[in-house]
Amino acid sequence: MDELQPREQLDVYVSQLLAPQAEATEVFAQAAEVLSNSELSLLLEALPIEERFLRWQELSAELQASVLVGMRAQARRPVLEALEPVALEQLLQQLDAEGLIELSDNLSDEQVDRAYHYLDEKQKLWFRDSSQFTEEQIGRYAEHRFISRLATTKAGDALRALRRSSLRDASRIYVLEKGGVFLGTVRLSALLRVKDENQPLAELLEAEQVSLNGTLSLLDAAELIEHSEATELPVVDDQQRLIGCVSPQTALWIQREEFEHRLMAQAGMDESTDLFVPVVRGARQRALWLGINLLTAFLAAWTIGLFAEVLSKVVALAVLMPVVASMGGIAGSQTLTLIIRGLATRQVTFGNSLALSRQELSIAALNGVGWGLVIGLVTLFWFDSTVIGLIIGVAVLANIVVAALSGVYIPLLLDKFKFDPALSGAVVLTTVTDVVGFVTFLGLATLLIL
Amino acid sequence: MDELQPREQLDVYVSQLLAPQAEATEVFAQAAEVLSNSELSLLLEALPIEERFLRWQELSAELQASVLVGMRAQARRPVLEALEPVALEQLLQQLDAEGLIELSDNLSDEQVDRAYHYLDEKQKLWFRDSSQFTEEQIGRYAEHRFISRLATTKAGDALRALRRSSLRDASRIYVLEKGGVFLGTVRLSALLRVKDENQPLAELLEAEQVSLNGTLSLLDAAELIEHSEATELPVVDDQQRLIGCVSPQTALWIQREEFEHRLMAQAGMDESTDLFVPVVRGARQRALWLGINLLTAFLAAWTIGLFAEVLSKVVALAVLMPVVASMGGIAGSQTLTLIIRGLATRQVTFGNSLALSRQELSIAALNGVGWGLVIGLVTLFWFDSTVIGLIIGVAVLANIVVAALSGVYIPLLLDKFKFDPALSGAVVLTTVTDVVGFVTFLGLATLLIL
Repeated sequence: MDELQPREQLDVYVSQLLAPQAEATEVFAQAAEVLSNSELSLLLEALPIEERFLRWQELSAELQASVLVGMRAQARRPVLEALEPVALEQLLQQLDAEGLIELSDNLSDEQVDRAYHYLDEKQKLWFRDSSQFTEEQIGRYAEHRFISRLATTKAGDALRALRRSSLRDASRIYVLEKGGVFLGTVRLSALLRVKDENQPLAELLEAEQVSLNGTLSLLDAAELIEHSEATELPVVDDQQRLIGCVSPQTALWIQREEFEHRLMAQAGMDESTDLFVPVVRGARQRALWLGINLLTAFLAAWTIGLFAEVLSKVVALAVLMPVVASMGGIAGSQTLTLIIRGLATRQVTFGNSLALSRQELSIAALNGVGWGLVIGLVTLFWFDSTVIGLIIGVAVLANIVVAALSGVYIPLLLDKFKFDPALSGAVVLTTVTDVVGFVTFLGLATLLIL
Repeated sequence: MDELQPREQLDVYVSQLLAPQAEATEVFAQAAEVLSNSELSLLLEALPIEERFLRWQELSAELQASVLVGMRAQARRPVLEALEPVALEQLLQQLDAEGLIELSDNLSDEQVDRAYHYLDEKQKLWFRDSSQFTEEQIGRYAEHRFISRLATTKAGDALRALRRSSLRDASRIYVLEKGGVFLGTVRLSALLRVKDENQPLAELLEAEQVSLNGTLSLLDAAELIEHSEATELPVVDDQQRLIGCVSPQTALWIQREEFEHRLMAQAGMDESTDLFVPVVRGARQRALWLGINLLTAFLAAWTIGLFAEVLSKVVALAVLMPVVASMGGIAGSQTLTLIIRGLATRQVTFGNSLALSRQELSIAALNGVGWGLVIGLVTLFWFDSTVIGLIIGVAVLANIVVAALSGVYIPLLLDKFKFDPALSGAVVLTTVTDVVGFVTFLGLATLLIL
């Protein structure tokens, strides 16, 4: 009996492969024996491009294909680009329908055509089935690890088919009409209970049948698996034809991608981003986000510029400015994060936004008063000025309260107008808290000091 | 055949339940029929505390227990606190072992004891098995939806047990020695192939057996499921006794919690945070994070204060300060995000940190030079000053480069010293980019202008 070990080996292999004077070929051969295919994909992604290509080439032709398929789109791109035509052709011959679907973004149409012709008839059908769906739809990622039989099949024959099957966890038979229309499933335990071997599968269908439409979004499909008790769910097209099934592993992969998308989006990056993307390409990918944020920074600077007069007279204001902006930004990001999570779980909507803004405003009022007092007192003693202490206290309170309201409604509005709140929420929010912070703080100072 | 529908209903129900003059009781009764238990838990979490309690009380006693168990720890707390003693007692009687484990954080020791005594003998054993593990260990969340038999059981008897089983997807039998030691599994297809009904299960065990140790971390367990092909994995204790199994649903739940933890940690919050936490409690939970960030803001302010002289002479510096800090902060957060994801997937380690910092420094150099030029030119025309344009260009370049290096090594060091990079990475990084930005910008100005 093997007790499965956690993936700590992965970082050990990364270190060993990149150590000075590493015997990389030997180390990698050992890794290839110990690790699963998906772990090998992760390992290769963690290597700089040159080492990645060298190690990948050391894999057997079959492993090469499946490890490449398991890598992030951007991480496998340099490997494909470095391939000689002959080696690429070998790779295309190794792909199955699912692998070709996954790789098709990285390949030219003409390459996809060639790979398609290497598929056998069944795989060709599966490829056509899947490729009618977009990358955002679950149908594209349907798998084919199940046993299907026509509804007229006799129970005894179905049982024999299951017995011969090499599938690890087959516990049901997918039942089809002629033409591939999905009728439902028959549980293995139902087959075992049958008295008459000749009873057709049509009479043994489970009472409660569920399926997923292939056009469903990936995340919806993963959620439906999480909230169902099934270990896999059949996927059908609009004509109820069986396209494949979704396994828990696929659901886990979808959920991981979705969350990585949200994490990476916060920094304006794509979830497929490669650790070792070619430098110029990487710089270009990040430049846009820096540019957008620069615009908001210039907006904040312009706001400050409106108060040049008071700033030139009271240098303490320039010193304290970042404190006001920062407190608003942090308080706002707390509300924002809570609301973005709620939008993802569909628990936040305009329907409860009133209750939520009341809630967030109350919390903001408490923290605004508390921290406004603290900051006011610190300022009073630091700069020995009651009026600046008073001004900053009020500005902090105002900014935290505005931040709470913005934290609720900015993501709701972005979501309503089909912008991704995870991507743009923080930029918009920070712009608001910067501008509001500077205007209240420096504006009050202009009124009270000048 | 039902085509499963995505969870869009959830937000519709939230809106309907909170609409003015809502017939909440009727709407909720309908929701309870349509939604799964875990969706009902999400729905209740989306309601303010008072409505949450009212609606929850309208559920049947059995549903009350399982819906409460499905809610986040913080969200169910006010429901439990509002319960009368008699109602609480009824609830305790409804719990099974898994539910009691989940609720035990919200209950007093004495209440857990009472609930324990309501369990039947089998459930009591399961509760004891699970409660030897901590909340961070997979053993605590082991489930019991499997069929187990002693190794001496005859194949024919095992087959009859499977046939009678009400489990939806049972495809194997867990085989035990006396005393509960786990020997392995027998596949249903193997049972079907057996010629001699009297053959004991011990002779039919699968060749490749895997199990998880109950002390494994939740995330490790979820990853092992994602990278295995199994639909469930058995969990054992140190004496190889069978504790239960982990289903794909549990793996999905673990993965979701883990990612929510990372998202919420960035704003200094806990993943169990309730949308409608009582206000004072909520304000207190967020205050600490605001306080920590205030310290770093004061540090930045103090840094600025060192350059009071030049600031009082050249007000343009005060106006432009936030631009330098912001560009460093944004560039740094891009690197930081990439590295934090890499740490989570175990693809980033000190072993490839040198290659990564070389990569990130190259990208930073390109963007630093590019954006430094742009910002320098804008400044030149805005303030009609070559020297300020030059100063800010150099300061932006320097800050972006330092940000890249910090983005690689801050999370690696935090991780090494067992701090959570998702929680504290951004605070530390922003402090560095603020201070470096202000010091280079204002320092250069002091040297060149004063």
